[in-house]
Amino acid sequence: MTIAQEIDALTDPSFMTSLARGLAVIRAFSDSRRSLTIAQISQKTGIPRAAVRRCLHTLKQLGYADSDVNNFSLRPKILTLGYSYLSSTPLTVSAQPYLNNISRTLGESCSLAVLDDHEVLYVARSAASRVMSVALNTGSRLPAYCTSLGRAMLAHLPEDQLKAYFDKVKLRALTEKTVVSQKRLRDILAGVRANGYAVIDEELEVGLRSIAVPVRGASGNVLAALNVGAQAARVSVAQMEEEILPVLLRGAQELSVLLP
Amino acid sequence: MTIAQEIDALTDPSFMTSLARGLAVIRAFSDSRRSLTIAQISQKTGIPRAAVRRCLHTLKQLGYADSDVNNFSLRPKILTLGYSYLSSTPLTVSAQPYLNNISRTLGESCSLAVLDDHEVLYVARSAASRVMSVALNTGSRLPAYCTSLGRAMLAHLPEDQLKAYFDKVKLRALTEKTVVSQKRLRDILAGVRANGYAVIDEELEVGLRSIAVPVRGASGNVLAALNVGAQAARVSVAQMEEEILPVLLRGAQELSVLLP
Repeated sequence: MTIAQEIDALTDPSFMTSLARGLAVIRAFSDSRRSLTIAQISQKTGIPRAAVRRCLHTLKQLGYADSDVNNFSLRPKILTLGYSYLSSTPLTVSAQPYLNNISRTLGESCSLAVLDDHEVLYVARSAASRVMSVALNTGSRLPAYCTSLGRAMLAHLPEDQLKAYFDKVKLRALTEKTVVSQKRLRDILAGVRANGYAVIDEELEVGLRSIAVPVRGASGNVLAALNVGAQAARVSVAQMEEEILPVLLRGAQELSVLLP
Repeated sequence: MTIAQEIDALTDPSFMTSLARGLAVIRAFSDSRRSLTIAQISQKTGIPRAAVRRCLHTLKQLGYADSDVNNFSLRPKILTLGYSYLSSTPLTVSAQPYLNNISRTLGESCSLAVLDDHEVLYVARSAASRVMSVALNTGSRLPAYCTSLGRAMLAHLPEDQLKAYFDKVKLRALTEKTVVSQKRLRDILAGVRANGYAVIDEELEVGLRSIAVPVRGASGNVLAALNVGAQAARVSVAQMEEEILPVLLRGAQELSVLLP
């Protein structure tokens, strides 16, 4: 829970601070890869310890969390919350066979993502069985400016939303190749818009290359993006454009029929 | 939120009713495959309409829900809650490459599940690219008594927990073959315990056959189960026992090294 939300809560009598805090406590466990203490969660979220304790107590009563002495961890029941979204959203329910098909055709991992809070959020994924494709799961997030999925969507934002994005985002170099100049990024996005696809060549991670295309809804608006990532050592940019791009473009067209 | 939890809330001053209600509202969307109104959610959860409205208002403020006039839907940000569990749990983080490997070796879908609230809860999955393997996602649930994953875990429950399970569960026939007699199920579970694996032959769904083995932690306790499902028309029970079982047993042994 952010300070802004705490202030919202003070001025908005319908805002449930305790629900916001409980969800913030759940999110504090992201990427921790271990159990957390009340003090650690309090530090991570900015929520007072007494309130964190009550949130954890409630989550434990409901079967969403567990504790071992002073160490708290999430229980698998938390997955049923994400499943609520997955199973109630035509996009993710229907997208999986298309992603599986692309992944099988190409022998590479294929992902579908949306923009959320100025980040790329993975909503569906079909993993090829190579070991490197492990780390990304549905629900994981990456920065938009240095991912092919992100650029495929940023390229189609209206100017006021793109300006808001650049005003908010901190452009950090994740590898030596990451473009962090707003001017250069805007040029790249103009190219993505003109070409109809985005390629990232080791800007996110050394050795990783990916290509993405926008997915439009029936209204013509870009609602998501579809990508394929591969090891740079195995697949050249030219191969991506010649072999992977046509499959992605066909997939995006098939998916767009499903969208509002 | 159940009536039992409402009563808990009255007698337990640390229990946060509003957090419990918010999570129940999120779960109301499961499998709805569409947006819901306040009245529909109130009916589904038993939470008063005014409280449902406040929950949805709060979820919307936080970016977890959206509304179109009176119809509410979840936003992809909900996935970040499930990701909190996935990325903080050694089991799911580490299991994926093993599942991918099994799925690739056999050309069939492979899943890892735990028992939660007397149901089988999928915590990791590697899908083969056949179309029929689409419906099950991480976070989805199935009854334990008529699934191979469920039987592989039920077979190793202590008697008091098994009794509690049978006291609570409603045994329903999902196909003509579903075993719904507690006596017969207890005999089957004894066989599963003795053999070290469970086979389900069209008891969950006509045309679906699956085989599961328990996954033990370092302590020797059964903490999860691993299975492979296949179309009955393609894979016989004998083939499952001869070809799939050895791969599953090896996978379960590899996974158990990762577990507490």
